[in-house]
Amino acid sequence: MTNLTYESFPARTFDKLRYGDTDRQGHINNAVFATLFETGRVSVFHDPAAPLLQPGRSFVIARITIDYKAELFWPGTVEIGTAVKTIGNSSITFLQALFQAGKCTATAESVVVQVDAATRRSAPLDDAAKARLAEMMI
Amino acid sequence: MTNLTYESFPARTFDKLRYGDTDRQGHINNAVFATLFETGRVSVFHDPAAPLLQPGRSFVIARITIDYKAELFWPGTVEIGTAVKTIGNSSITFLQALFQAGKCTATAESVVVQVDAATRRSAPLDDAAKARLAEMMI
Amino acid sequence: MTNLTYESFPARTFDKLRYGDTDRQGHINNAVFATLFETGRVSVFHDPAAPLLQPGRSFVIARITIDYKAELFWPGTVEIGTAVKTIGNSSITFLQALFQAGKCTATAESVVVQVDAATRRSAPLDDAAKARLAEMMI
Amino acid sequence: MTNLTYESFPARTFDKLRYGDTDRQGHINNAVFATLFETGRVSVFHDPAAPLLQPGRSFVIARITIDYKAELFWPGTVEIGTAVKTIGNSSITFLQALFQAGKCTATAESVVVQVDAATRRSAPLDDAAKARLAEMMI
Repeated sequence: MTNLTYESFPARTFDKLRYGDTDRQGHINNAVFATLFETGRVSVFHDPAAPLLQPGRSFVIARITIDYKAELFWPGTVEIGTAVKTIGNSSITFLQALFQAGKCTATAESVVVQVDAATRRSAPLDDAAKARLAEMMI
Repeated sequence: MTNLTYESFPARTFDKLRYGDTDRQGHINNAVFATLFETGRVSVFHDPAAPLLQPGRSFVIARITIDYKAELFWPGTVEIGTAVKTIGNSSITFLQALFQAGKCTATAESVVVQVDAATRRSAPLDDAAKARLAEMMI
Repeated sequence: MTNLTYESFPARTFDKLRYGDTDRQGHINNAVFATLFETGRVSVFHDPAAPLLQPGRSFVIARITIDYKAELFWPGTVEIGTAVKTIGNSSITFLQALFQAGKCTATAESVVVQVDAATRRSAPLDDAAKARLAEMMI
Repeated sequence: MTNLTYESFPARTFDKLRYGDTDRQGHINNAVFATLFETGRVSVFHDPAAPLLQPGRSFVIARITIDYKAELFWPGTVEIGTAVKTIGNSSITFLQALFQAGKCTATAESVVVQVDAATRRSAPLDDAAKARLAEMMI
């Protein structure tokens, strides 16, 4: 994902860094990056225009790899780009990146599984969801 | 609450400070104190031996005043003392204090209201709850 | 502070709610409110146009009272209004309010003390700081 | 790391889950797992008996992969096991696992780099640090 810019991501959102996101090293704590990537994913799942989340379903994360490329500093906003890498039967692999002032500070690849909210078992993505996700592939 | 020690509180629990609880000033961020006081209150509401929380009910906080007396530093644990000051028809006023290495670092007074989980309206505490809370008064 | 609107506050900023700000009760956790109020205060202390924070100084919170008026829900932003109530020799009393979709969900009164960053003793506010704060009184 | 138990990890610590760690799905939010794994790593870096962190040095995370195996639920504690997988010139690869009530709920592999605190450039681990880390290999 070396050459990706924020604008190249099909789903784009942001978070505003908080004072308490910093830690004693003076930068944004590494675990906050996981929260920022979640902001990108849930903006897709709960998109008011075309929500992926359906009644009785839930999305749970199975795996995430975060590559930290630069420190984030308060104050400021972080731009969050989200794209789809692969679409499985009931799972989605996302590619994401964080940008501060135009600079990529981290990338992530994550696998999210759709489950039945009651049984917690994996539940297949329907055709409409797959079509919507296909539009987000890069 | 000047002379209160941790041992003088009827309900006692603790939290373990986390690296990310610190902020760029090097100490534990002030908002984390609110979380630590919540730990004290929910240990009372959800006490496995005698839970105050009943089916269909919920406790919501109406007001909290926190007096910050000293900085908290990572690493370490924080001892959290909780007592009941007054018992209303549907509300409880708690007195709480945080201690690190025996030193009181903050006190709090909070008002929590029992509500009906569905209607969100206040719901009276029953006699058993009031009796349990009365044992926690100091 | 019953009749205050967001626009009536001299210092105005916002935060964007995060998925992880919610708790098992489905609403924004009460301790997050303390973080949101901090966002309002630090936007004053670190205002790029006219920062109150001076080299060798630090602002520490001495007391906060939060009145919870309504639940906050994800997703969305929260507008944060901040005003100055009183100016002491080395302390400032702030009045603040949170708004979601135009509705006031919480108010807070807090006392912050300027300290010497090295000695941690209170340090008097200078005339420039007092004049800047006076402009924020309501 | 299929068969690893908590006891099989050379470095062992814990965190206590907090009410606010939960999210609207009722379980512990996925980003909190990143915080729990950090607790394991910093307990090694800042071990009072044999701290790895040296004056003028800092440890920064370069990459983490988290595999989520089961949900975590409040209340309770989480046991955190940490081991060393490989030791580089200035980097360390850690293997970690989280356990709740004896059940492994997540594993992680992370790469941490020692840097010069001033220049932020990578700084080689000295022989004492490498020897200490070698004792933590599994």
